[in-house]
Amino acid sequence: MEYSFSDRVLELKPSAIREIFKYAADPEVISLSAGNPAPEAFPSKAIGEIAAQIFAQDPIGALQYSVTEGYPALRRHLLAYMQKTHQIGRAFDEILITSGAQQVMDLFTKSVCNEGDVILCEAPSFIGSLNTFRSYKARLCGIPMEEDGISLSGLEDALKREKHVKFLYTIPNFQNPSGITMSLEKRHGVYELAKKYGIMILEDNPYGDLRFAGEHIPAIKSFDEEGIVMYAGTFSKVISPGMRVGYAIGPKPILQKMIVCKQGEDVHTNILAQMICDEFMTKYDYDAHLAGLREIYRKKYALAEEALQKNLAPDVTWTPVEGGLFIWCTLPDTIDMPTFCKEAVLRKVCVVPGNAFLTNENDPCHAFRINFSTPTDEQLVRGIELLGTLLREKLGGKA
Amino acid sequence: MEYSFSDRVLELKPSAIREIFKYAADPEVISLSAGNPAPEAFPSKAIGEIAAQIFAQDPIGALQYSVTEGYPALRRHLLAYMQKTHQIGRAFDEILITSGAQQVMDLFTKSVCNEGDVILCEAPSFIGSLNTFRSYKARLCGIPMEEDGISLSGLEDALKREKHVKFLYTIPNFQNPSGITMSLEKRHGVYELAKKYGIMILEDNPYGDLRFAGEHIPAIKSFDEEGIVMYAGTFSKVISPGMRVGYAIGPKPILQKMIVCKQGEDVHTNILAQMICDEFMTKYDYDAHLAGLREIYRKKYALAEEALQKNLAPDVTWTPVEGGLFIWCTLPDTIDMPTFCKEAVLRKVCVVPGNAFLTNENDPCHAFRINFSTPTDEQLVRGIELLGTLLREKLGGKA
Repeated sequence: MEYSFSDRVLELKPSAIREIFKYAADPEVISLSAGNPAPEAFPSKAIGEIAAQIFAQDPIGALQYSVTEGYPALRRHLLAYMQKTHQIGRAFDEILITSGAQQVMDLFTKSVCNEGDVILCEAPSFIGSLNTFRSYKARLCGIPMEEDGISLSGLEDALKREKHVKFLYTIPNFQNPSGITMSLEKRHGVYELAKKYGIMILEDNPYGDLRFAGEHIPAIKSFDEEGIVMYAGTFSKVISPGMRVGYAIGPKPILQKMIVCKQGEDVHTNILAQMICDEFMTKYDYDAHLAGLREIYRKKYALAEEALQKNLAPDVTWTPVEGGLFIWCTLPDTIDMPTFCKEAVLRKVCVVPGNAFLTNENDPCHAFRINFSTPTDEQLVRGIELLGTLLREKLGGKA
Repeated sequence: MEYSFSDRVLELKPSAIREIFKYAADPEVISLSAGNPAPEAFPSKAIGEIAAQIFAQDPIGALQYSVTEGYPALRRHLLAYMQKTHQIGRAFDEILITSGAQQVMDLFTKSVCNEGDVILCEAPSFIGSLNTFRSYKARLCGIPMEEDGISLSGLEDALKREKHVKFLYTIPNFQNPSGITMSLEKRHGVYELAKKYGIMILEDNPYGDLRFAGEHIPAIKSFDEEGIVMYAGTFSKVISPGMRVGYAIGPKPILQKMIVCKQGEDVHTNILAQMICDEFMTKYDYDAHLAGLREIYRKKYALAEEALQKNLAPDVTWTPVEGGLFIWCTLPDTIDMPTFCKEAVLRKVCVVPGNAFLTNENDPCHAFRINFSTPTDEQLVRGIELLGTLLREKLGGKA
C-alpha cells in the first residue's frame, strides 16, 4: 500500500543527533555526542528505597489511573519549592506535571500556535524543541546569539519584521548547545521586548540547577508580573531522565488548554515516577543532592577544559561554560565542519555537527557540540585527544 | 493579558467524563462512571518484587535516557507474543512502545491526518479518542452500531459519501461505551471495505484479554495482509494503567513517522515501567494472571447483571457483554436521559450520560454507561439500587 501522510510530518526528519547515536552505539566509538546525565549523578539507592516503600504502603495509588494535572502532592510541593527558592509562580500561575519537559514544548505549541505562526528561537538551539515546533508547522526564525545571550537588537528586528510571532523560545542557563548563559540585563531586556510586542516567552530551564561556577541568575519567569512566561522544568537532569517527569508553570488559562491536550496525548504522566520525585524532594536532603551534582559536573568540566586546552587550542575555540552538560567548539574557517565530524567518527570519536541545532540546517556552521557528562573521565580525555590528532592532521595537511 | 490560542484548541473541551469525576470525588457518591480496572486485579506484589530486583541489578538502565522506539527486550518479547498468540504482526509491521494506548491514537492521527480529513468512528465511541481526533481538527463521522458491531451498510454509505476519509477507528471487543463485540463476519467485512476504498483501520483493543464469556474472535489486524491496520494495545487493563505503557503494531513506514512525532512529544516512555512489563510478561505466569483477571470481571459482571435485572428491568434495557468493563443502559423514551443522570448524582450515584460518547454531543440519546470494574461489590449493588429507586419514581410520576 502507498501510505499518505499528514503535511506536518512529510518534512519531519528523525533528529540528527539520534542518527549520530547509531554510530555512538558502536562500543569502540567514544561518544561525546549524548546529552545524558552522568550515571553517577543518579540517586539510585534512594530511588530504590522510595519505590520499595511505595509498593509496601500504597501500591494501588502507584498503579491506578490518576489525574491529568499530575500527582497532587508533587504539584503542591514542587510549586511551593519553586516559589520559595526561585520566585517562580504567581497567583495567576498553575503547575502541570508533564512526561518530561519535551512535553511542555509540545503542549504549549499545540495550544497557542497555528500553522504558519512564527516562533523565535536562539540560533543555535535545542534540536528536540525545534523539531516539536516544526511538527505543528510553525515557522522558525533564528536570532543570533552573543556571549551574554540572545542578541536584543536581533530580537527586536525580528519582532518588527515578522508577523504572527507567537513566542520566543529560550534556554537562558548553559544553553544547549552553545553553553551560553544569558545575563540578568538581557533577561530583563527580553522580558520587556516580549511585553512591548505582545508575545509570550517559553523559558526552558533543564540545566539551571547544574551551575558549577559563577553567580546564580534569576529566571525570566521570576520577574513575570504580566503572565507572559511559560516556564518548563524537569527532573531529568537532577533525578533521572528515564522517569520522564517534567513540569510547566504558567498562566492558568494556557495551562487549562495544555491539560486538555495532555488528556488526548497520554492521559497522565507515569504515577510511580511522580510519587518518587515527590518523596525524594520532600523526605531526602534535596539541596545536598543538588550540591553533589554540581560537584560531579564541575570536575567533569574541568577535565574537559584541560584536555581541550592541551589538544585543540588555540585553533579550535570555545565559550567557557558555568554549568550544564555541553561545550560548543568552533573550528578554524579553513576546516570543513561536517567533514571533520564524519572523519572523527571513523577515528572512533563522535561529536554533534553544529548545524543540527540551526533553524535552517543548511546555514554555514563551523561548530560542533561536545558533551562532558556522559563519558567516563578516561573516555572524555581520550576522545578529545582523538579530536586533537585529527585537527593537527587537517591543519598540517593544509600547511 | 488576553491570551490567543490555536484554532485547534479553541473548541476542545475537557472530557465530560472527567467533569463527572468531580462529583464522583465526593466520598458519599457511588461512582459507576469510571473506567478504572478493579484494584484487586493489579499484580501489586509481583510488580513490587520486579521493581526491587531492577533497582538491585540495573538501576542505571532504569533511570537513564532510552530510545524512542521502546525498551528493546519488551519490544522483542511483546511482538513475538502477539504474533504467536494473536497472529498480530507481519514482516512489514513493527512495534512501538507508547505512553498508554492513548498516545497511539495521538501519534497515528498526527502522522496521517490533515485538518479537515475525515475519521469514521463507531457511534457511540470512546470519548478520549474522539477528543484526540478533534485536537487535530479532523472531521468525525459517526457510523451506527448494531448488536454485532458497526453497520457495514452505514460504513459503505459513508465511504461513498465522504471525501478525504483517512481511517476508521474501531474498538471491536467489548466496545467502550456500548459493550458490543464485533462478529468475525463483520471484522472481515470491515477489512474488505477498508481495502476497497483505500482507507486505513485504527484497531483499538484495550479490553481484548478481558473476555469472560463466549468465544475469542480474532483481531482485524490478524488478517491484515495488506498493511492497512494500525493496532493499538495496552498494559493498562491487564497490568496497571498508572504505568502508562501501551503499544502500536503497524506498517513500518507509518510507525517511522509516529516515532519522529513521539520524539517531539515525550522522547520515550518511562523506562522502569517498560522493564516491569517485560519482566512480568516473561518471568511470571502471564496466562494464569490473565485467567485470574477474567474471573474477577466475570464475577463483577454477574453481580451487576443480577442487580440490573432486579432493579432496572424491564424498563431499562442493556446489551449483555462478554468482556470488558462497561454496560450500556438505555432508558425508556419517556425519560429524559441528561435529567436522569443529574438526578442520579443528587441521589449519590454517578453514571456517564451517553451523549458524551457521540461524535455530536447534541444528538438525541437515551443511554448511559455503567462501569462494573471499579466499585466494590457493595457499591455496585447499592448504586444500581439507587438508580432503580430513581427510575421507579420517574415512571410512577408519569403514570
